[in-house]
Amino acid sequence: MSKEKDLDIKLVKEDESLDDLQLDGIHLIQKKDAFRFGVDAVLLANFANVKRSHRVMDLCTGTGIVPFILFGKRKPKEVVGLEIQEEMVEMAYRSVQINSTFETIKFINGDLKDKSLLKSLDKFDVVTVNPPYKLQNAGILNPKDKTAIARHEIMCTLEDVIEASRLLLKDNGRLYIVHRPERLADIFCLMRKYKIEPKRVRMVHPNTKKAANIVLVEGQRDGGAFLKWEPPLYIYSDEGRYSDEINNIYGR
Amino acid sequence: MSKEKDLDIKLVKEDESLDDLQLDGIHLIQKKDAFRFGVDAVLLANFANVKRSHRVMDLCTGTGIVPFILFGKRKPKEVVGLEIQEEMVEMAYRSVQINSTFETIKFINGDLKDKSLLKSLDKFDVVTVNPPYKLQNAGILNPKDKTAIARHEIMCTLEDVIEASRLLLKDNGRLYIVHRPERLADIFCLMRKYKIEPKRVRMVHPNTKKAANIVLVEGQRDGGAFLKWEPPLYIYSDEGRYSDEINNIYGR
Repeated sequence: MSKEKDLDIKLVKEDESLDDLQLDGIHLIQKKDAFRFGVDAVLLANFANVKRSHRVMDLCTGTGIVPFILFGKRKPKEVVGLEIQEEMVEMAYRSVQINSTFETIKFINGDLKDKSLLKSLDKFDVVTVNPPYKLQNAGILNPKDKTAIARHEIMCTLEDVIEASRLLLKDNGRLYIVHRPERLADIFCLMRKYKIEPKRVRMVHPNTKKAANIVLVEGQRDGGAFLKWEPPLYIYSDEGRYSDEINNIYGR
Repeated sequence: MSKEKDLDIKLVKEDESLDDLQLDGIHLIQKKDAFRFGVDAVLLANFANVKRSHRVMDLCTGTGIVPFILFGKRKPKEVVGLEIQEEMVEMAYRSVQINSTFETIKFINGDLKDKSLLKSLDKFDVVTVNPPYKLQNAGILNPKDKTAIARHEIMCTLEDVIEASRLLLKDNGRLYIVHRPERLADIFCLMRKYKIEPKRVRMVHPNTKKAANIVLVEGQRDGGAFLKWEPPLYIYSDEGRYSDEINNIYGR
C-alpha cells in the first residue's frame, strides 16, 4: 500500500465512506448513513456561473460537496464553505487534506446569523447555498438531530440565508440557491427585501409529465429587474433513463 | 334569411368579424385586424376554478372573451367584465345581444384604479385578469393607441390590477392571472403586498424543450402560504402538432 493511500485511510473513519466525485480525481468524505449529498448540490454547483477569478462562499456547506464540485469544474480562486455543525466542518477539512486543496478550499465553523463574523470576511463574487428546505414547524424535531438541522429551518431560516448573502456579496455579485418550488414566492420576496434581484430561474422536473420538484434561482445584488426562465431540466427521459443532460452533468 | 340572423348581421360592423367560440353556440364580435383574443385568454378561462354559484369579475376584459368562455364552460351565476376602453365595451355588449346573455354577462366601462367604483360593487368569489404584459417604459408609445393600451401598462400597472383584485374579492376569494414568466417575481411580491397569497402556478411552454412563455397564477385573498406547482402545459407536442391537452381545451 502506498504511503498516500495509507494517509487517506487514516483520514476516513469507520462510519464514513470516501467517495470519488468522478471529477478531476476529487474525493469526498461522507457518513455512510447520513448527510450524503444529493442531486440538489450537484445541480446547484452546475447552475452557478463561477469563473476562475472568483471568490465563492458556500453557505450551509455540510460536508463541502458544493465547494469540491466547483473546484473540480471551475477552478475558482477560492471557495469558502460556512457550516454551523462542527462535526461536518471537521469532516470537510479531512476532505481538504485528502485532496490537497488547502490553498483553494477553506471551511469556517460558524453561524450565518453572526453578522460580525460575516462582516469580518472579504466580500465574495458568488454565494451558493443549498439551505434546509423544510419549515421548522413541519413536525416536532429534536434540535440536536444533525440530519434535521440540515433539512429543517432549525438553525437558520430562508430569510437568514438571504440576509447573510446580502452582507457577503460584492456589488452586483451573484447568489445561487437551490430549493423547493413551493418556496419560490418566499425566495423572490425575500430576495427583493434584501435587494438581491431574481435574474434567472431553472425548474427541475422528474420528467416532462411531472411538476417541478427542485428550483434553481440566480439573484444579483442590486441587479436590475429582469427575470429569465430557462428551459426545464428533466432528470429522467420519457423512457425512464437518466436524461442526456443529467448524464452530462454527472460526467457519464 | 331568418330574423335572428338578420339581427346578428346588423350588430356586426364592417371592420368586425363574428367568431364561433365552438362552445355552446357562443359567438364573439372582434375587430378583423385588432384585439383578437389569443391563447392566453383561453388558458386563463380554463385555469380558473369557477363554480355555478360564483360571481366572477374579469378585469381588462377587452371584447369579453374570458366572460364568454367562462359562461360557456362553467355557467357561473354572474360574470362582470370591467374595461376602460369604451369602444371595447360597446363591442362586448353587442356580443351579449347576439348571445342573449343579458342575465349572466355584464360589462362596465370603467377604470380599475377608480376605488369608489370598485367599492360600489358587491364582492366577487373570483377575479380573472389578462392584463397588459409590457412595462410602460418598453419603448415610446402613443397613449391613444388602443392596441398599445391592451398590451402595455399605460392605463394600469400590474400593481393597480392586484390592488383592485384585493378590493373586489370576498374573503378567501381567488384571483387568476395570466402573464409572462419574467414578471413572476413582481406578481408574487405584489400579491403578498396586497395579502393575496400565491397558491397555484402553471407554466406554459411552447414544447418540452423550450422555456415557459406564459404563466398562470392562482392567488387567494388572505390565504395561507403554500404554493403548488402543477405539471407544465405544452402547447405543441414534440412532433410539432397541438398537444392533446391544448386540443381538449379548444374542444377539438
